[in-house]
Amino acid sequence: MTKSKAIHNSPAVPPPALPAAAKPAFDRRNMVLRISTALVFAVFFLSLLYWGGGTTSGNLVYFVLMALSIFAGVRELTLLGAKMGFNPSLYAGVAAAWLMLMHFFFASRVVMGERTLDPDTLPLWLALFFGALFIHFGALFFDSRRDQALPSQAITWLGALYMGLGLGFQQRLFMIGSSTVTKTGSRLILALYVITWLGDTGAYFIGSLFGRHKLAPKVSPKKSWEGLAGNYLGNLLGAWLMKVTVCPDWSPVDVVALALLLGTVGQLGDLVESTWKRSAGVKDSNVGMGIPGHGGMLDRVDSLIFAAPALFAYVHYVHGLG
Amino acid sequence: MTKSKAIHNSPAVPPPALPAAAKPAFDRRNMVLRISTALVFAVFFLSLLYWGGGTTSGNLVYFVLMALSIFAGVRELTLLGAKMGFNPSLYAGVAAAWLMLMHFFFASRVVMGERTLDPDTLPLWLALFFGALFIHFGALFFDSRRDQALPSQAITWLGALYMGLGLGFQQRLFMIGSSTVTKTGSRLILALYVITWLGDTGAYFIGSLFGRHKLAPKVSPKKSWEGLAGNYLGNLLGAWLMKVTVCPDWSPVDVVALALLLGTVGQLGDLVESTWKRSAGVKDSNVGMGIPGHGGMLDRVDSLIFAAPALFAYVHYVHGLG
Repeated sequence: MTKSKAIHNSPAVPPPALPAAAKPAFDRRNMVLRISTALVFAVFFLSLLYWGGGTTSGNLVYFVLMALSIFAGVRELTLLGAKMGFNPSLYAGVAAAWLMLMHFFFASRVVMGERTLDPDTLPLWLALFFGALFIHFGALFFDSRRDQALPSQAITWLGALYMGLGLGFQQRLFMIGSSTVTKTGSRLILALYVITWLGDTGAYFIGSLFGRHKLAPKVSPKKSWEGLAGNYLGNLLGAWLMKVTVCPDWSPVDVVALALLLGTVGQLGDLVESTWKRSAGVKDSNVGMGIPGHGGMLDRVDSLIFAAPALFAYVHYVHGLG
Repeated sequence: MTKSKAIHNSPAVPPPALPAAAKPAFDRRNMVLRISTALVFAVFFLSLLYWGGGTTSGNLVYFVLMALSIFAGVRELTLLGAKMGFNPSLYAGVAAAWLMLMHFFFASRVVMGERTLDPDTLPLWLALFFGALFIHFGALFFDSRRDQALPSQAITWLGALYMGLGLGFQQRLFMIGSSTVTKTGSRLILALYVITWLGDTGAYFIGSLFGRHKLAPKVSPKKSWEGLAGNYLGNLLGAWLMKVTVCPDWSPVDVVALALLLGTVGQLGDLVESTWKRSAGVKDSNVGMGIPGHGGMLDRVDSLIFAAPALFAYVHYVHGLG
């Protein structure tokens, strides 16, 4: 065994005699950190879906999770905008996005003790109107760089809509109830993540192994047609896995339709976020603080942002849920 | 009669003896054009309110009027963005804004012959989701200048929301029905315009005559505290005029509350549009074609954009309408 090799091995291997280069050691620490963070989050998230689905405490914990993620995502979009020389407002953007999240929370027919709250407690039009007051009137009083007023306020809106609607639809999906199947919302959220992430995984492996024909060299130079096929294969596998485990009520048509639908909007959503980062000249949306070992929030949610409303629209109009 | 003058005069007026400078002659022609256009529009608009209120044809004509105004406004915001070096999409912005307008149309419980359409025919979340697909996915395929992807897509959203929501709420107000008072929607639209425009007029005259103390020199150098007071006086006069004529059901509290509410959001909305124009380096939102003699669409609607949702929210929550 060569000394330089030992660094990458498991702890059972004897320590190297020679001083190691910093780079590989950091990579290993990064991988450990990445896997630990993912494991902790996965265990917590699956517990939330399994025990929290359909409960008031579960709904509230999901709400806090979405609210924190919205904060992180709007912050990253604000930093991207600042890097391009604009002055978007973190506070106004987060406030507007949280109002949208609250809309989706109340729209889910919240049960508080004995009574069911009016689903129209905070209509979407009112959330958007107050969001507009925060973003535009707030800029009149607090924006110190008015030479960029138009793009700055526009980017604040973009961040608010992207995170507020994207994660708001997750909240709405999680809180969907059904009279025949228990924990419908938890099943749908699991399906959203499994279909989307198996698609990402399929694209990565098939693309790395067989990728030869470039898909969109100007937008994302690494993407290939083989990766695209791998993505849809992953989506199909994910949707089929859902059908045979937690969503037995899905027909084969549902499996294929959801794989195609979520696969398409997920991949396009991934490309959209890539063009934003590229236009700001960064490779990692995490400009500063982020999830340990995982890069930025935007990089984590980009495929889910458009997939969540697409899944909600599908189950709403095809299955009559929500 | 000199040849050059004759062109601009009305036939009945005697010709001047001295040759006139070109400037006043041009101003006069502009004023004639301005007044003619305003008169034609006012006559048409008042007829629409008087005879069209509560009728299917009136609702549809109002819809077409809003749809055309949305096109003109989004176009001006797109041109402002282009002037700053960005590449917002006119088509995606107009499509997204028209979807929002359609939402407000259907949300008004449209009666078609024998049956009432489902007010949830096009929910706002679905209009926004399709808008997002047009704006973001459209840019992936058609945006030729991706170095500005983030601000360009953001400005497309801003234009869509500003015009789509702002004029969508007017459509919603116009179509409000009431079981006790006929043509409630027409009365509310008239109140919206009279309160807002008497405010603008009051600010102009009081500000021009007595304006000494600057209000917000950085945002709008011409505004004064005296003009602000004149604005609220105009708003109050407008609201009171509405109460004594077409809105006898308003209480004195309604008069004061609506004057303060519409006056405040109207003036701030006016300032917001000023900062956008200033940041783009233009004085007139009409970058090219516009309403004859009246400048740009944005300059016409800026105070109404925020006043319409404020008025809708007031009559919805205070009077239980809509």
